[in-house]
Amino acid sequence: MTASTAMTLSAYNSDSEQRTKASLARLQQLVADDLKRVDALILEKVKNGIPLIHDLTRHIIASGGKRLRPSLTLIAAQLCGYTGSRHIPLAACVEFIHTATLLHDDVVDNSSLRRGEPTANVVWSNKASVLVGDFLFSRSFQLMVEDGSLKVLKLLSDASATIAQGEVMQLSTANNVATNLEEYLAVIDAKTATLFAAACAIGAVVSEQGEKAEENLYHFGRDFGIAFQLVDDVLDYSASEASLGKTVGDDFRDGKVTLPIILAMEKASESERQFWKRTLEDQEQQEGDFEKALELMQRYGTLKASVEQAVAYGESAKNRLKDFPASAAKEALIDAVDFCIMRAF
Amino acid sequence: MTASTAMTLSAYNSDSEQRTKASLARLQQLVADDLKRVDALILEKVKNGIPLIHDLTRHIIASGGKRLRPSLTLIAAQLCGYTGSRHIPLAACVEFIHTATLLHDDVVDNSSLRRGEPTANVVWSNKASVLVGDFLFSRSFQLMVEDGSLKVLKLLSDASATIAQGEVMQLSTANNVATNLEEYLAVIDAKTATLFAAACAIGAVVSEQGEKAEENLYHFGRDFGIAFQLVDDVLDYSASEASLGKTVGDDFRDGKVTLPIILAMEKASESERQFWKRTLEDQEQQEGDFEKALELMQRYGTLKASVEQAVAYGESAKNRLKDFPASAAKEALIDAVDFCIMRAF
Repeated sequence: MTASTAMTLSAYNSDSEQRTKASLARLQQLVADDLKRVDALILEKVKNGIPLIHDLTRHIIASGGKRLRPSLTLIAAQLCGYTGSRHIPLAACVEFIHTATLLHDDVVDNSSLRRGEPTANVVWSNKASVLVGDFLFSRSFQLMVEDGSLKVLKLLSDASATIAQGEVMQLSTANNVATNLEEYLAVIDAKTATLFAAACAIGAVVSEQGEKAEENLYHFGRDFGIAFQLVDDVLDYSASEASLGKTVGDDFRDGKVTLPIILAMEKASESERQFWKRTLEDQEQQEGDFEKALELMQRYGTLKASVEQAVAYGESAKNRLKDFPASAAKEALIDAVDFCIMRAF
Repeated sequence: MTASTAMTLSAYNSDSEQRTKASLARLQQLVADDLKRVDALILEKVKNGIPLIHDLTRHIIASGGKRLRPSLTLIAAQLCGYTGSRHIPLAACVEFIHTATLLHDDVVDNSSLRRGEPTANVVWSNKASVLVGDFLFSRSFQLMVEDGSLKVLKLLSDASATIAQGEVMQLSTANNVATNLEEYLAVIDAKTATLFAAACAIGAVVSEQGEKAEENLYHFGRDFGIAFQLVDDVLDYSASEASLGKTVGDDFRDGKVTLPIILAMEKASESERQFWKRTLEDQEQQEGDFEKALELMQRYGTLKASVEQAVAYGESAKNRLKDFPASAAKEALIDAVDFCIMRAF
C-alpha cells in the first residue's frame, strides 16, 4: 500500500456513512430522463411477437439492477457536452450485451439468485436463458449497425469477445488455488472492466471529442471496472445478503479463487494451504468452513488489502478525468467511483 | 403439387444415384483453395492462449461437416466474378456464426451426437459450449468490423437475431401437435434459411454487383435453405444413421413437430391424433411407436409430400439465378440445390 492510498483509505473510513448515501444519487439524477428513454427503447426492441423473449428481458430489466453500464454511456456523453440522441440506443446496446452475459453467466454458474430475485434460468429454463441471451446479443449488434459507427461496433465487438474469453479463462482456472494475482486481474479485466471501458468510451465517440478523450474515458471505465469487481469479490465475504442482493459466500461455495483468497494463500501455513485446497479445489466443504475462511482473511488482513487495491484503481480512474472541464457530470463520475468503493466499508 | 414439380420429382427419381454422387463435387472443387484459406483463418482467429476455445473449435471444424454455408459465400463471390480476398474472412464469419449456433443448439437440445461424432457439450461441458459459442459469435463480429462493410454487418446481425428468434419460437412451439404449416415454415426460415440467404448475398456485396444481384442471391439462399431443412427433417425419419451423421428418430423422440407430422395430423383419424398427441406432446413413447409413426407417414404419403415441397423451393431457388451469365459457379450452385434434394431419395 502506498502512502497516498493509505491516506485515501482513511479518508473513506472517516465519513463513509455520509458518502455511501450521497454518491450514486447525483449520477442517477443526471441520467434519469435519458435512462427512461433507454428502458423504453429496450422494451420496444424486444417486442417481436415472441412472449418468452419479452417476458424474460422484462424480468431482468425490472429486477432492480443499478443500470450502471448504460448510465456510464449516458453520463460520459454528458461529460463531453453531447447534445444529440445517439447515446440512447447505444446505451441500450451496452445493457443488451450486459444482460446477455448475465443470462449466460447464470446458466454457467447454476445460479439461482441475482439481485435478490430468482434468476431467469430458474423461472424459465437454461434453454430459454441461452437462446434469449443470444437474441439480445444479436439485437445489440443490429442497433449498432443502425447507428452506423464502425468505432462503436469495434468497441463492443472487442468487449464481447474479451468477456467471453474471460469467462472461458475462469472456467479453465476455476477451483485452482494456485491462481496468482496476474491471472485474477486478467479475468476481472476481461469479465467486467472491458465493458465498463467500452460503455464510457462510447460517450466520447458520439460526441466526436477526439482520440484523447476516447482513450481517457476508456481507461477511466476500465480502472473503474476493476475497482468495482475487486469490491464485489470482497463483498461476497463481508456483505449482508440484503445489501448485496445475492447469496453471500457464493464464491466460496463455488470455489472461485478471488483476491482475498490469493492473498491468504500467499501467507498461508501448510495446514492452511490444505484447508484452501480441500474447500476450494476439492470442493469438500463442511459446517464452519466459511467461518474459518473469514477468520483466515481477517487474520492476514486480506479483505482490507483487497479493498486497498480497489482504492488504487479507483484513484487511477478518477485521475483519467483530469483533462475534462469541471461539470456536474464529472462530479457524478467521481462520486460513482467513490460509491463503488464505499460499498466495501 | 404442381405439374412442374411432379415432373421434376420424377426426373430426380430417374437418375438419383448418379446425381447424388456428382453434385456437391463441382462446388467443393471450385471453392477448395478458398476454403483452405478460410479454415486456416478460422484456426488462427481462435488461437488466443486459451486451449479450451481452440480445442473446442477444432473439434467442430474437424468433425467433417460439409461447410456448406461458407462455401456458399465463396461460390457466390465467384458467380459475381469477384477477384479480391474479402470473401475469405467473411466466409469465416458465416462459419463462426453457424458453429456458435450449433454449440448452443446442442446444449438446448441435449444432443449427444452430431455428424456421427460426440457433440462438444458431451466431450467438454454445457458451460464450455455456451461460452465458446459466445466467443465465436463475438469473434465473427470483430472480423466483420475489420472488413468494414455495414451492409455485411447488417446481413449477419439480422441473420443472427432471426436465428435466435427462430430457436426461441421453436422452444415455445415444441411438442405442440397443433403447429401448422405456416408456423413450421417460419421456424425453418428463421433457423436455417436466413443464414443461407446472408451467406449467398455477401458474395454479391463484396463484388459490388448492385442491389438486384444481392437480392437475387439472398432469395436464392433463402429458398435453398428452406429446401435443405425440409429434406433434413424428412431424413430424420428415413435416412440411415451412417449417411445422416446423427441419430435417426431424434426429432420424433424430442417431439419436434416437422412437416411430415403436420401433414399426417391433417389427415389423421381421432385415434391417430391421440397417438401423435401422446408420443409428441405428452412425450409418452413406448417400443414400436417410431415404427408406427413411420407407417402413418407412409400411409398418407407425408414424407413424399414434404420432399415435393422441398423440390418446389429448390426450383424457386434455381430460378433466382437466371439473370447471372452461365459459368462453372452457376452450375455448381444449381448442382448444390439438386444434391440437397437428392439426399431424400
